[in-house]
Amino acid sequence: MTPDWNALHAAINALTPIPDTEWEAFKQLAAPLNLARHEHFIRAGETGQHIALCLSGLLRLYYTTPDGDEFNKSFCVRHEFIASYSSLLTDAPSFFSIQALTDSELLLIRFRDFRALYDRHTCWERLGRLVAEQLFVKKEIRERELLLLPAEARYLLFLERYGRLAAHIPLYHVASYLGITPVALSRIRRKITRKGSPAS
Amino acid sequence: MTPDWNALHAAINALTPIPDTEWEAFKQLAAPLNLARHEHFIRAGETGQHIALCLSGLLRLYYTTPDGDEFNKSFCVRHEFIASYSSLLTDAPSFFSIQALTDSELLLIRFRDFRALYDRHTCWERLGRLVAEQLFVKKEIRERELLLLPAEARYLLFLERYGRLAAHIPLYHVASYLGITPVALSRIRRKITRKGSPAS
Repeated sequence: MTPDWNALHAAINALTPIPDTEWEAFKQLAAPLNLARHEHFIRAGETGQHIALCLSGLLRLYYTTPDGDEFNKSFCVRHEFIASYSSLLTDAPSFFSIQALTDSELLLIRFRDFRALYDRHTCWERLGRLVAEQLFVKKEIRERELLLLPAEARYLLFLERYGRLAAHIPLYHVASYLGITPVALSRIRRKITRKGSPAS
Repeated sequence: MTPDWNALHAAINALTPIPDTEWEAFKQLAAPLNLARHEHFIRAGETGQHIALCLSGLLRLYYTTPDGDEFNKSFCVRHEFIASYSSLLTDAPSFFSIQALTDSELLLIRFRDFRALYDRHTCWERLGRLVAEQLFVKKEIRERELLLLPAEARYLLFLERYGRLAAHIPLYHVASYLGITPVALSRIRRKITRKGSPAS
């Protein structure tokens, strides 16, 4: 795989401008990593050392309860950062696992190396701030949806957000992400199909 | 009220060093704001314009459902930042309200002014990144606790985290923060008292 560096540079530049010399330095840090479907990027209990950028594919972040039940906390798609971010920031074991749901192409970067960029040029400090802010907003939106929206509204938002990729996510994973049982999700899907909404 | 600038400077310096000239610029932006018990900093539906620093007191951040039920999402104590941060970052109405639970002294700063500091000196960019990272870690920890820990363990963590201040938080607010009913919380408290744990 040869990463499409231009598309990636454009995606990151849309957040904050990265001068060409800095972009060249960044490219030196990044190594390609292919994950086959069902392979893990990190497992709960391991301490994260890397961040990655998703070039293609689809991944899930999930918690495992002491009883072995799984809860999907979020999904990652193209051009999003992938990391057990709290684990990296606090140098503590990850609370959750990250697994590829389809064959996925990633760019792997040691977090230590990425962090060293902060002292090299302000653009990286700014990128770090913007990514942390985005992650925070994403989590706050999810918290609100879980607390305030009924399951059907949450499912429609899920379809809107993950669009075509939603077809690759098994229904029990979707149900777990929505915080409902697979049976409740089937009921919602039947109801929506009868109404003739986008999911039909 | 005269803010204890030295204590505040020390608290922020513990995150990242702020040079004296930058600290003077920051002080020019900040105005004292006293909130009486039960007064609001922001209400759901309003678009945030300010961030604040808590100098003393205790505040809660809470959601209101369409039925008028309230869910406490978090609390804010001394030297923590207070803001409807997603509202500020996305320039959208706040999803939640922030209310003082005790008389509280704040320092108020227009977010526009704070953001202008980012271009002035790297120390502010770094502070912005670190605060966003801390907020993110805090939310991820809370998500994990809600998904994986039983209510009793969540209550013990709450006591550990908010210590002495917990006495100022009415029990129905604590129950709402823990995601349980006040009746369930009373049961947990009785059980802990019988065991002779720190809450007794």
